[in-house]
Amino acid sequence: MSDQKLKNLYSPFKILSNGYLQVIDQTKLPFAFEEMTLKTGDDVYRAIKDMIIRGAGVIGNVAAFGVYLSSLESNGDIKFIRMSSEKILHSRPTAVNLKWAIHRMLKILDQGTQDITEKLKQEAINIAEEEKQNSRKMGDYGLSLIKEILSKKQKNKINILTHCNAGNLAIYDRGSALAPIYEAKRLGIDIHVWVDETRPRNQGANLTAWELKQEDVDFTVIPDNTGGLLMQRGDVDLVFVGADRITKNGDVVNKIGTYLKALAAKDNNIPFYVFYPSSTFDENLESGTSVPIEERDGDEIRFITGKDKNGNILTIQIMMDEAKVLNYGFDITPAKYITGWVTENGIRNFNTSPAF
Amino acid sequence: MSDQKLKNLYSPFKILSNGYLQVIDQTKLPFAFEEMTLKTGDDVYRAIKDMIIRGAGVIGNVAAFGVYLSSLESNGDIKFIRMSSEKILHSRPTAVNLKWAIHRMLKILDQGTQDITEKLKQEAINIAEEEKQNSRKMGDYGLSLIKEILSKKQKNKINILTHCNAGNLAIYDRGSALAPIYEAKRLGIDIHVWVDETRPRNQGANLTAWELKQEDVDFTVIPDNTGGLLMQRGDVDLVFVGADRITKNGDVVNKIGTYLKALAAKDNNIPFYVFYPSSTFDENLESGTSVPIEERDGDEIRFITGKDKNGNILTIQIMMDEAKVLNYGFDITPAKYITGWVTENGIRNFNTSPAF
Repeated sequence: MSDQKLKNLYSPFKILSNGYLQVIDQTKLPFAFEEMTLKTGDDVYRAIKDMIIRGAGVIGNVAAFGVYLSSLESNGDIKFIRMSSEKILHSRPTAVNLKWAIHRMLKILDQGTQDITEKLKQEAINIAEEEKQNSRKMGDYGLSLIKEILSKKQKNKINILTHCNAGNLAIYDRGSALAPIYEAKRLGIDIHVWVDETRPRNQGANLTAWELKQEDVDFTVIPDNTGGLLMQRGDVDLVFVGADRITKNGDVVNKIGTYLKALAAKDNNIPFYVFYPSSTFDENLESGTSVPIEERDGDEIRFITGKDKNGNILTIQIMMDEAKVLNYGFDITPAKYITGWVTENGIRNFNTSPAF
Repeated sequence: MSDQKLKNLYSPFKILSNGYLQVIDQTKLPFAFEEMTLKTGDDVYRAIKDMIIRGAGVIGNVAAFGVYLSSLESNGDIKFIRMSSEKILHSRPTAVNLKWAIHRMLKILDQGTQDITEKLKQEAINIAEEEKQNSRKMGDYGLSLIKEILSKKQKNKINILTHCNAGNLAIYDRGSALAPIYEAKRLGIDIHVWVDETRPRNQGANLTAWELKQEDVDFTVIPDNTGGLLMQRGDVDLVFVGADRITKNGDVVNKIGTYLKALAAKDNNIPFYVFYPSSTFDENLESGTSVPIEERDGDEIRFITGKDKNGNILTIQIMMDEAKVLNYGFDITPAKYITGWVTENGIRNFNTSPAF
C-alpha cells in the first residue's frame, strides 16, 4: 500500500496548529478554491448543513472534529458538548456516517472527563486515520482490477467511467472509486477518466474534474447521456462508482443515474465495480427496493451556477418559470448488474459470494 | 384522424399574406417567444444554419420554402434559384430531410419555368401538408397505444416519458412522439409527461416543456439521470421518442441518451416506442453500428443559457476552463430493445415483423 503523498491532492479538512479545523469550501469549486476555518461546534453544524463540506465519509470526519471543537469552547461543560453534538447530528438527515461518527465520539465522552478535549481530538484523528487506511486499501484493490484488465486486453491505456464524486472530497484521503485511479496515475499507468457531469448538482463536472486536475489525471467531462454510446463503441474498459448504501442482497444505492450506467455496462460486457468503506453496508435492509428515496429541492434542477464572461460567479434559471421538476437524489442498482463490490476488506464477486 | 386545431400550439413556420415566411426563433425559447420573417433564400440559409429553426422535419419544410423565396427574389433568373437552393442544401451537413426537400423542389424547377414562383410555393405547401398528415397519423396510431395501456392496466391516468423534442417544433404540425400526447389531451385523457432535460442542449427542458405548456399538458422536467428510477418505481407506463435515422435492421439513431432509457424500459418491462415519418428510414444502412456519429461543439456542454434574477438572458460557463469535453449528438438503440416502430403507415412490432 502506498504511503507516498500524492502530488497536489488537497485534504478536504485539516487541523491547524491553533487547534481549529480548516476545510475546503466545496460549494465554491471549481471556480474558486477557498478554505474556511471552523472554530466551534456551531461552525461545523453550518458547514455540513450548507454543504460547505459533503460526501458521506468526510461528513463523518468533520462531524467528529465538531465534537472536539465543541469541547474546546465548552470550558469543561460536558452538557454543552452533548447539546452541541446533538445539533451536529441533525445537520443532515440521511448521512449514516454522520451518526456513526458522532456516536463514536460520544462513547469517549462516556468514558470520563479527564483531558476530554485532547481525547476527543485524538479520537477524531483516529477516525480520519482509519478512513485514510480504508481509502488506500480500496485504492490497492481497485488497482489490481485495472492491472488485470490491462493484462487481459493487452492494452497500454485504460479508460474508466465514473459517476458523481467518489474522490478525496468525499472519502478521506483518496476517495473510494477514485483511489485506484490516483494509484494508477502515481505508478505511471496511462489512464483516462470519463467524468459524468452528474446532473442536477454536477458533482462530476464540479468536483471530480477539479480533483483529477489537481493530480494531472487525464479526463473528459461528458453529459450523463453519453456513457452508453461510449460503451457501445468500446471506449470504456471499466466503470468505477461509489455508494451511499449497500443492502443485504448487494443492491447499491448511489447517486441518481448510476443504475442507467450499470445497465449499459452489462449490455456491453464492461466490468462495473462499486467502491465503499464497509461502514456503508446496511445490514438492516434486505434489498434496494426497501430503501426510502430522498427527494431534494427542485431549485437544484431549475438553477445552475457558473461564471459569466467577466469571470463573475452567478446563478441563473435554466428553465421556464412554470416547469414542474422532480429531484430524486439516488437510484437503486440491482446486485445482478454489478461485477464486484470493493471495500477495505477486499473484492467480492456476486457470482462467487452473493451473500454479505 | 383529428382535423381540429389544437388550442395554442404555434406552427413553427407560416406563410404570411405578403408571401414571406414567418418562423419561431427556437433559440430564444423558452424565455422569449420571438418570430422572425424570412424574405430570401439567404434568410432561410442563416435560419437553418444558426438553428433559429431545427428538427429534421421542420428543417426540410423551411428549406423547401427557401427555394420558393429564392424564386420570389430571382426576377425569373433560374440560375439564381438553383444557386440559392444549393446554398440552403449546405446549411446543415447531416439532415436527410433537408436534401430530400430541396431535391423535390428542384424537380419542379426541372419541369419548366412558367409560373415558377407560384408552383414552387405550392410544392412547399404540399410538402408541409404531407408532413402534417403524417404527424396526425402518427398521433392516431400512438393514441391507440395509450388507450391499450390504459385498458390493460385498468388505469385512468397515463405517464409517458420522452427524451429530447419530437414535438411540433421538430415535425409539423404535432410532432412525431408528441402527436399522440396532444391527441390524448384533446380527448380528455388524464396524461402526464416526464420530460428528460436532454443535456447538453436541453431540448426537453427548453422546447418540449414549452410546447406541452402551450397545450396545458401536465408535465415534469427531470434530469436525464432520473428516468431509470421512475421506471423502477412503476411511475412510467410508456416511453415515446422520435428518431433521426432508422437502419434496415430496425436500429434507432436518436438523440444521445435514448439508448439508456431503452435499456431501463426493457429492464422494467415498459413498452418503448419510436415515432418517425417513413422518410427517416435509411435503406442504405444495414445496422446502427455503421452510422457515423456526429460530434458537436464542446461549448454546448461547457456553457448554458438562462435568465438571471433580473430577468436578463445570459450565457454562463458551467465548468472549469481546463475541462476537456466530448459532445456526441446521438446514440444507437439496438432494435431488440424497441417494442414498436410507429410511422404514418402504422405500428410495426419487432417480434412480428423484424424486417423493414
